[in-house]
Amino acid sequence: MNLKAFQDCYPDNYAHCYGCGRLNEQGLKIKSYWDGDEGVCIFTPQRYYTGGFPDYLYGGLIASLIDCHSAATASAAKAREAGIDMQEQPLERFVTASLKVDYLRPAPVGTPLEIRARVREMDGRKVWLDASLSADGKVCARGDVLMIQIPDRKEG
Amino acid sequence: MNLKAFQDCYPDNYAHCYGCGRLNEQGLKIKSYWDGDEGVCIFTPQRYYTGGFPDYLYGGLIASLIDCHSAATASAAKAREAGIDMQEQPLERFVTASLKVDYLRPAPVGTPLEIRARVREMDGRKVWLDASLSADGKVCARGDVLMIQIPDRKEG
Repeated sequence: MNLKAFQDCYPDNYAHCYGCGRLNEQGLKIKSYWDGDEGVCIFTPQRYYTGGFPDYLYGGLIASLIDCHSAATASAAKAREAGIDMQEQPLERFVTASLKVDYLRPAPVGTPLEIRARVREMDGRKVWLDASLSADGKVCARGDVLMIQIPDRKEG
Repeated sequence: MNLKAFQDCYPDNYAHCYGCGRLNEQGLKIKSYWDGDEGVCIFTPQRYYTGGFPDYLYGGLIASLIDCHSAATASAAKAREAGIDMQEQPLERFVTASLKVDYLRPAPVGTPLEIRARVREMDGRKVWLDASLSADGKVCARGDVLMIQIPDRKEG
């Protein structure tokens, strides 16, 4: 794929997140892309991200993936709404105001995960999204997220 | 403190969680203790757990800390209700059914965090908890968590 991922379109000063920052050497460096109206991210966690139940992912990583992927999808959706080509111009950055994750079934370790997010509503600097995390075609967790755009860097 | 932390009372097969497992070499190894009716955990994250906004924690770690600490508090509360001395007998293990985190203000990196959880309701295998994460005496995030006890190992 020649297109840059959403996270590769963040300005450098907002690209150090452990979950999604391309400049965080220790981080997960997740990558998200459009699939129609949904942001999608494929990610296979290291096996040491196991959870309380043996051989299944820890809930915190599931929340983290939904969180960072939803932030990126909010950014990309905001650019798309404004007619901005994110391949040419840095994305605005969003931070999490509220994150709800319902854990439906355990997610196995060592398996590629598919994380999806879709914008439910946008209002000014706020973006609400529905998200899911699936393994082997089964939804393991659902997310309901409110992201807020960081005020314009020129104002800061 | 001579008392074992809640997480040190998990059976070995449930002690590999990235967030709270004493046997996970790569993990965070958080430790929780009673402070009256509240579970409390003090934890200083590595600086590379920075988030989208420079010099502040990434939301996924905040969710992870609230998640793992709430699971441990649920386990300890269940033992306390049953009159079991967790210092003498392994704790039952809980997994997350639902996790909601509201992010109130950014949490700085490089600062000790205080994570607290209190049981709001218990019903059979279910435990609902209210949690908070504070830095420098200010609440940065609040959590609302539903934990479910893993079925008895003897049944499994």
